[in-house]
Amino acid sequence: MKRFPSSLIAGYRNFMSGRYTAESERYRHLADQGQKPQTLMIACCDSRAAPETIFDAGPGELFVMRNVANMVPPYEPDGNYHATSAALEFAVQALRVKDIIVMGHGRCGGIRAALDPNAEPLSPGDFIGKWMGLVSSAAEQIQGNSVMTDSERQTALERISIRNSIANLRTFPCVRILEERGKLQLHGAWFDIANGELWIMDPDSQDFSRLDI
Amino acid sequence: MKRFPSSLIAGYRNFMSGRYTAESERYRHLADQGQKPQTLMIACCDSRAAPETIFDAGPGELFVMRNVANMVPPYEPDGNYHATSAALEFAVQALRVKDIIVMGHGRCGGIRAALDPNAEPLSPGDFIGKWMGLVSSAAEQIQGNSVMTDSERQTALERISIRNSIANLRTFPCVRILEERGKLQLHGAWFDIANGELWIMDPDSQDFSRLDI
Amino acid sequence: MKRFPSSLIAGYRNFMSGRYTAESERYRHLADQGQKPQTLMIACCDSRAAPETIFDAGPGELFVMRNVANMVPPYEPDGNYHATSAALEFAVQALRVKDIIVMGHGRCGGIRAALDPNAEPLSPGDFIGKWMGLVSSAAEQIQGNSVMTDSERQTALERISIRNSIANLRTFPCVRILEERGKLQLHGAWFDIANGELWIMDPDSQDFSRLDI
Amino acid sequence: MKRFPSSLIAGYRNFMSGRYTAESERYRHLADQGQKPQTLMIACCDSRAAPETIFDAGPGELFVMRNVANMVPPYEPDGNYHATSAALEFAVQALRVKDIIVMGHGRCGGIRAALDPNAEPLSPGDFIGKWMGLVSSAAEQIQGNSVMTDSERQTALERISIRNSIANLRTFPCVRILEERGKLQLHGAWFDIANGELWIMDPDSQDFSRLDI
Repeated sequence: MKRFPSSLIAGYRNFMSGRYTAESERYRHLADQGQKPQTLMIACCDSRAAPETIFDAGPGELFVMRNVANMVPPYEPDGNYHATSAALEFAVQALRVKDIIVMGHGRCGGIRAALDPNAEPLSPGDFIGKWMGLVSSAAEQIQGNSVMTDSERQTALERISIRNSIANLRTFPCVRILEERGKLQLHGAWFDIANGELWIMDPDSQDFSRLDI
Repeated sequence: MKRFPSSLIAGYRNFMSGRYTAESERYRHLADQGQKPQTLMIACCDSRAAPETIFDAGPGELFVMRNVANMVPPYEPDGNYHATSAALEFAVQALRVKDIIVMGHGRCGGIRAALDPNAEPLSPGDFIGKWMGLVSSAAEQIQGNSVMTDSERQTALERISIRNSIANLRTFPCVRILEERGKLQLHGAWFDIANGELWIMDPDSQDFSRLDI
Repeated sequence: MKRFPSSLIAGYRNFMSGRYTAESERYRHLADQGQKPQTLMIACCDSRAAPETIFDAGPGELFVMRNVANMVPPYEPDGNYHATSAALEFAVQALRVKDIIVMGHGRCGGIRAALDPNAEPLSPGDFIGKWMGLVSSAAEQIQGNSVMTDSERQTALERISIRNSIANLRTFPCVRILEERGKLQLHGAWFDIANGELWIMDPDSQDFSRLDI
Repeated sequence: MKRFPSSLIAGYRNFMSGRYTAESERYRHLADQGQKPQTLMIACCDSRAAPETIFDAGPGELFVMRNVANMVPPYEPDGNYHATSAALEFAVQALRVKDIIVMGHGRCGGIRAALDPNAEPLSPGDFIGKWMGLVSSAAEQIQGNSVMTDSERQTALERISIRNSIANLRTFPCVRILEERGKLQLHGAWFDIANGELWIMDPDSQDFSRLDI
């Protein structure tokens, strides 16, 4: 019999008797007035890298796109379904967010698949294979590097991919125009799920450095 | 000057000094062992409908895909980039989740756009227009109804869209096969951001009814 | 042999030994002074939706018109017998009620009949068929909707019908004049017989929202 | 500002925390299975003569039609809106009730109006005037009786009207046919709102006699 997962029902009840009690006015207000999040967060689906948790964010703060390996494809107005492009367009043009953050993380399964020379398609559609093709040229280079450890290659590609995605953001005219006018800022971040560290990308050098807590 | 949003830095620090302190062992374990979430959650980007908040979920519990209006396009193995399909394939075939939940919510901006006969493209790419085309035939029927209020039409289409997405999940062979074998269950849920109510879809009648708290 | 139903005799005896004992003074007073109910309730005949039960009302409080599907026909002073119009006229002009409530409910048999494309007349007179014609244009629109479930269409039409009836109340000059002067208020309510929920219609948006208990 | 009457909201909350708590299973069952009331009650709108109160009836027991002076017009399948005929047809043909009770009561305002030679129309539509025309020939006779007190004339016409309505029930073919087959029984009752007495009509003599409690 198909029953809604009981752990989720329990979690929902915790939410309603706990956190929601303190925030109910805020939810009501946000429902009536609409959302005005300042930030678009592009993050990974990974169960260990939830933006609201990592940034202790409440309702109304973050507009969150999550896909495998937190990637942004290049601008391609070809009439097909583009989930990430649609979320981006909505956030920038309708919600008028001020900041876009591409947040990657350690131990990313999508990045691991991209680095695996023996990776088989997960299904005949090979959607992950095609999707991770967004970083294929960088992945090839990293794969060919025999002097870094697996973990170093993994972290390297996770961060290269964040930079790629930020570059792809700039292929969207609305993003480029607003960034040039100072209305929109692009940021990169990388979360180490093993120890909670957050690394922020320097916009000029594009290097990642650890944020002190 | 491009600085990482200070509110997010403050939030991250709250996380590290608060919640992370209690969960650091768990993060370490999940990093070393890998994630084994039981559930794929397909939710909306909306800042008021965060799954981890609503279900009080901790690290490792939910693999979360978020796009505008929590939609699942039909199966189309055509070699293009398909963010939602890739996340679905990864969750079902690699992570072997047991449950997929499509969670919609009230006041959804994507659904509102789909019901707006005067909607203009947000940008020349019109990504949202194309994306919301996933519910266009249902939207036309609902739009044509002159005896329901705006709010009733909105809620109706939010729920119809959840049913549509669940039907589209079944166009993916891996989903269909596993569901038939009892290895995978599909669920629908709708969160009322105004008052915290959670409505669960009955798998047989497809009607939504409110979960008691 | 035709005997008065014994269950009703038993119920009457319970009333007399129980509730009546506490209220006998009130009945005497109301008999001598006359009734001054503040509210006209227009409700359905349905055995599961009794206004006195739902509102825990005692003698003298509610003047109650009950017909199939709690409907109000439009004003038609044509000399025929008009049960609902007579009750309305009496309540407004003789009793001078302050509030009129049109209360609908879930699982309404009249509404179900209106939505049933294969409905056959219950008798050659087809009184129900004609009576439900009061909502036929709305019923046609709702019937044509193929993307809502039966239950969603049912609830939608139950609520639309309440709005229709309130609009028809305003076709009665005495109602319209008194409402404009602030002497009479019109309300809509919908009772969910399955779980006891009461939904009240917002007079401005005409949307129904659940009353907290 | 138009607010739903607070006394009714308070009454509803009493219902939900009191009676409903004990009967919630029954409501759920009746919602799922449908109603099967055995009795159609035709009663007056009067706030002092509520059938569920007088007969201590719970959900699912009584299908209740209420109009001014608890009257049944004669069978007239002319295509117009006939509230009472529609309720009767639904109760007899769809719900297949076993008993129909026409319950009148003392101090009935409609009957008083019918006996008042100086009665003016309550509104230009004169709906009450037309409606009470259902007992006009009996009313004329009683009015002309100079040796009964007002109260005796009132009670007399209340009871004559009940007999009239029962006779009118028999003009409906479905009622007549089912009564002849022993499938349906017709009853008359009269409630004295001053002292709680219930008088039952003897089906043969048509006299009313008080029920012992």
